Amino acid sequence: MRATLLGTGTSSGIPLIGCECAVCQSSDPRNRRRRTSIHIETDTVHIQVDTPPDFREQALAYRIPRVDAVFFTHAHADHIFGFDDIRRFNTMQKCVIPAYADAATLQDLKRIFDYITTEAIPGFYRPQIDFRTLTTEVQVGDVRIIPLPVTHGPKPTYGFCFEHHDKRLAYVPDCKTIPDATLSLLEGVDVMILDALRHSQHLTHMTVEESVAALQRIGAPQSYLVHLCHDLDHAALEASLPKGIGVSYDGQQIVLT
Amino acid sequence: MRATLLGTGTSSGIPLIGCECAVCQSSDPRNRRRRTSIHIETDTVHIQVDTPPDFREQALAYRIPRVDAVFFTHAHADHIFGFDDIRRFNTMQKCVIPAYADAATLQDLKRIFDYITTEAIPGFYRPQIDFRTLTTEVQVGDVRIIPLPVTHGPKPTYGFCFEHHDKRLAYVPDCKTIPDATLSLLEGVDVMILDALRHSQHLTHMTVEESVAALQRIGAPQSYLVHLCHDLDHAALEASLPKGIGVSYDGQQIVLT
Repeated sequence: MRATLLGTGTSSGIPLIGCECAVCQSSDPRNRRRRTSIHIETDTVHIQVDTPPDFREQALAYRIPRVDAVFFTHAHADHIFGFDDIRRFNTMQKCVIPAYADAATLQDLKRIFDYITTEAIPGFYRPQIDFRTLTTEVQVGDVRIIPLPVTHGPKPTYGFCFEHHDKRLAYVPDCKTIPDATLSLLEGVDVMILDALRHSQHLTHMTVEESVAALQRIGAPQSYLVHLCHDLDHAALEASLPKGIGVSYDGQQIVLT
Repeated sequence: MRATLLGTGTSSGIPLIGCECAVCQSSDPRNRRRRTSIHIETDTVHIQVDTPPDFREQALAYRIPRVDAVFFTHAHADHIFGFDDIRRFNTMQKCVIPAYADAATLQDLKRIFDYITTEAIPGFYRPQIDFRTLTTEVQVGDVRIIPLPVTHGPKPTYGFCFEHHDKRLAYVPDCKTIPDATLSLLEGVDVMILDALRHSQHLTHMTVEESVAALQRIGAPQSYLVHLCHDLDHAALEASLPKGIGVSYDGQQIVLT
């Protein structure tokens, strides 16, 4: 199983438009972060998690060859507004693509992308989606996907654990707290990728310190911070972290064999 | 008055994801087209037309310093799904930003971006927009904006004519036919930018041939084709066009003095 981090930045991305700070002006490519999403693949299946507005640029930059299923963590702008570009994969693959999310997120997606479910208009090119309500774990090809409910403001929000053979990678990009029941699902995970917005407190995102504490409790052999804002310089942050915890970057690949 | 073409491609952009054609693989930067939008500025005002999913990348690439008003041509995916990134300009400018569109387009925008108009959620960062129904011409700073109704499938669709002192630039990115009443509004325009999807027929977009015929009828001293698909190579298309008609490209600037 291979994971590619297509984007690792918070909802505004880094650089922030019009920002002159050292991180936004940095020449370190790891400080350029599109909106957070991840692509999971095995030899037989490709799974896309979230479709940020940047999804087309991400698919081009990292040469995503196909999408067999889309999973949505939640319905915030930075995770959904590239959904229309899934239609290109419909065309290439000549098939409808399933999109999985909890009921409330699906309801938001259907409201926002109403043209996907309404009657076809001649000459109008749209995604062909099979919306599927995610209530428990599901199998897509040779990958088992376990939903991980977390808290992140009023909207229901999930991370996902991807299991392939005996390896497990968990991805929780937007999160303030991890309920105990979800922590139980994370026991023995091999790779853990977790929200860490900045050092100062935020109502709906973990700070670096909160994230590090949670990662140490989970105890995965490899852990990475994701969904960073421009308060955090890649190299400086990485140098400050405990052993086994790294900072994700756009285009990073994690291979589990 | 200065116009910057932030994007000049059709709804899929060029290159198309996963496409191996000569245009999508071209090394000519003019064959790389984000989704169509334009930024109009004078010494005192900045006007953004449409917010494609690529809007953040466009604002960064062409260093858009401010946005005093947004105008929407219509509510298709490739013209609206970057709207959330306007919030950065709210932060920088410390003010609400007006968004102008016809009533049906505003209704779509309010449905899709419902979180802009509903009650504020603590910790949730969103655009601050004053939605304004566009029924006739309006003044924004020292620019007069004249709506140009055109046909483009079932959704109401507009182009806009921007008038500053005695100069006029008209921008009609999505269009199958231009009604006579709109042609009258285009009389004496200095720069005309018009939809030209490809050579083969399309139900809701002009072909190159239809666009050239319309541009010759309008008779602007400078005309440009926009909203191109990957059937069209920039250099080859430009070489084939009548005098006075060019092919737009991402980042192109047109100055009217």
